[in-house]
Amino acid sequence: MKLGIVFGGKSFEHEISIVSAIALKKVLSCEVVYIFCDAQREFYWIPTEEIAAKRFSTGAYKKDPKLTLGHGGFTCKGLFGAKPLNCDLFLNVIHGADGEDGKIAGLFGFFGLPFIGPRLEASVVSYSKLLTKHLALSCGVRALPYEILTPQKRTTTMAYPLIVKPLRLGSSIGVSVVRSEKNLSYALDVAFEFDDTVIVEPFVEGVKEYNLAGCKTLQGMEFSIVEAPQKGELLDFDKKYLDFSRTQTVAKASLAGAEVEQLQKAFFALYDPLFEGALIRCDFFMIDGEVYLNEINPNPGSMANYLFDDFDGVLNRLAKALPAPREPEVSYRYIHSIHAAKGKL
Amino acid sequence: MKLGIVFGGKSFEHEISIVSAIALKKVLSCEVVYIFCDAQREFYWIPTEEIAAKRFSTGAYKKDPKLTLGHGGFTCKGLFGAKPLNCDLFLNVIHGADGEDGKIAGLFGFFGLPFIGPRLEASVVSYSKLLTKHLALSCGVRALPYEILTPQKRTTTMAYPLIVKPLRLGSSIGVSVVRSEKNLSYALDVAFEFDDTVIVEPFVEGVKEYNLAGCKTLQGMEFSIVEAPQKGELLDFDKKYLDFSRTQTVAKASLAGAEVEQLQKAFFALYDPLFEGALIRCDFFMIDGEVYLNEINPNPGSMANYLFDDFDGVLNRLAKALPAPREPEVSYRYIHSIHAAKGKL
Repeated sequence: MKLGIVFGGKSFEHEISIVSAIALKKVLSCEVVYIFCDAQREFYWIPTEEIAAKRFSTGAYKKDPKLTLGHGGFTCKGLFGAKPLNCDLFLNVIHGADGEDGKIAGLFGFFGLPFIGPRLEASVVSYSKLLTKHLALSCGVRALPYEILTPQKRTTTMAYPLIVKPLRLGSSIGVSVVRSEKNLSYALDVAFEFDDTVIVEPFVEGVKEYNLAGCKTLQGMEFSIVEAPQKGELLDFDKKYLDFSRTQTVAKASLAGAEVEQLQKAFFALYDPLFEGALIRCDFFMIDGEVYLNEINPNPGSMANYLFDDFDGVLNRLAKALPAPREPEVSYRYIHSIHAAKGKL
Repeated sequence: MKLGIVFGGKSFEHEISIVSAIALKKVLSCEVVYIFCDAQREFYWIPTEEIAAKRFSTGAYKKDPKLTLGHGGFTCKGLFGAKPLNCDLFLNVIHGADGEDGKIAGLFGFFGLPFIGPRLEASVVSYSKLLTKHLALSCGVRALPYEILTPQKRTTTMAYPLIVKPLRLGSSIGVSVVRSEKNLSYALDVAFEFDDTVIVEPFVEGVKEYNLAGCKTLQGMEFSIVEAPQKGELLDFDKKYLDFSRTQTVAKASLAGAEVEQLQKAFFALYDPLFEGALIRCDFFMIDGEVYLNEINPNPGSMANYLFDDFDGVLNRLAKALPAPREPEVSYRYIHSIHAAKGKL
């Protein structure tokens, strides 16, 4: 299998995506081809041996071969015309905007590229924290209560402390914990920098958090271990950045078998069938013995490789279980028949 | 204004899109450029004077200039290299798959093409009848009760008669009215041909239907007249096809001012801000004096031009009110700082 790893993107998490892509090099056994999407959304083919953060931050990648996206894949302009960049399938490792908001899914869907990653609907649903709440509700998975605020509605009836989040960013950017009303306005100003809509939830002090990753392969659901992430009040961007470079398997959370099953059951309810083709990580809360969905990461940092005992095997099996697109058949029977019935249109 | 009309698409409604595009020629005063997306998703520049259904059904369009989509627009290969096809903005008139499922929105968003049409999230939400239900709920707009069926769950507790619809097709294809349990199985077989998920709703005999189109411009919301569509039990595909070629303003439904206001209020709640940049048509039911959302058409047939007294003016004003994309700023500050702190990544 020759895997095209697509990373970068016009996203606040552009850098995190670079780190994810680098991390994958260490944990995948298949042949990989690195396809970088820069801040201008131009694609470049980065030589695998040259893959390092500095190549991107210094702009040195601009000397690498430029790629054009078209039907079935990427091509590389050469002296004797365009040469296809042969890949069997692609892995979407763009975090946040472009990668998780549906643009890459739309692009790859339109041009017929086989890929690991969330499809269009799955992207849009997990990118919006409101649509994620609706999804949880319709799957029978608990989620914290919430309120939607806009620049026209800046007050809430929820009790403090609160957590304030831009509705659509897939990271901790613009997120604040607000302990009293007097700090709400500033937190909203920060959040509105990133989205016209803000979601407010209760901030549960010391809540137990559990992360679980997984995907559906031909063997059924394959789950990672459950991790209890060690973090401060909020996983800040710097910490998250380092976090995403992890390639070491982490310690299992100490949970009873029944609790792990509860988490897996909630994960499956959310995953199937919407996220078919993707390896996702769900971040849950456990409150009074009940599982609550916090968020869904459809392209988790470094593909959550550190949560799997056999990440390489899981990814290879997922590659064989991609959902076939339902491609409508185009016909001209109505034009033909109406043409016959009523003359030239 | 030079408007690129993008039509066709790999969709069951490919033909209907052609009819819509032809209808628009008659009602728009601005300069138009026709961009056809064929069943292989190749783009062609169709000379405006040659626009007729037969050009597509016979395959004659294949002799027209082929276009390549890239940053900012389309280019046309010529003798002396690629020449840009100059358009000030684009109008998405692809119905159903590609045009209304988010692929075109993703593509145009990624490549930075200004366009009239639903953005990504609006596309995905209105393409799925389940997400549309959730939207209505969260906007305070009534919708009929429903049940979701899958190949694993083929029974319903709802009372007959029922209407059975594939979850994600933007047309009447695969839709059946089922009057008794013995006919459910066949209707489900038909619907599952088109989607893995089916939505079942009560079929309300003789329900009053009202269609309302509109969009937000710099003048505020601009609404069309309300139409009470004349139709049989179901608007079948043939009828719909003819319907889409309409360019004559239709008769207003006889409704009291307060009822029109009720419909406009529901429309606005659904539209704002999700559908900014699009001219949509909402199809409502009126039951016991209450408004119920039936469906949202984010690219309505022939852009619902026949519902407006001054369609040309509305479209021109909408063209000046497109939402600016929130484009994240890409920086390398974390790579720079972490590089400094921990050596080469």
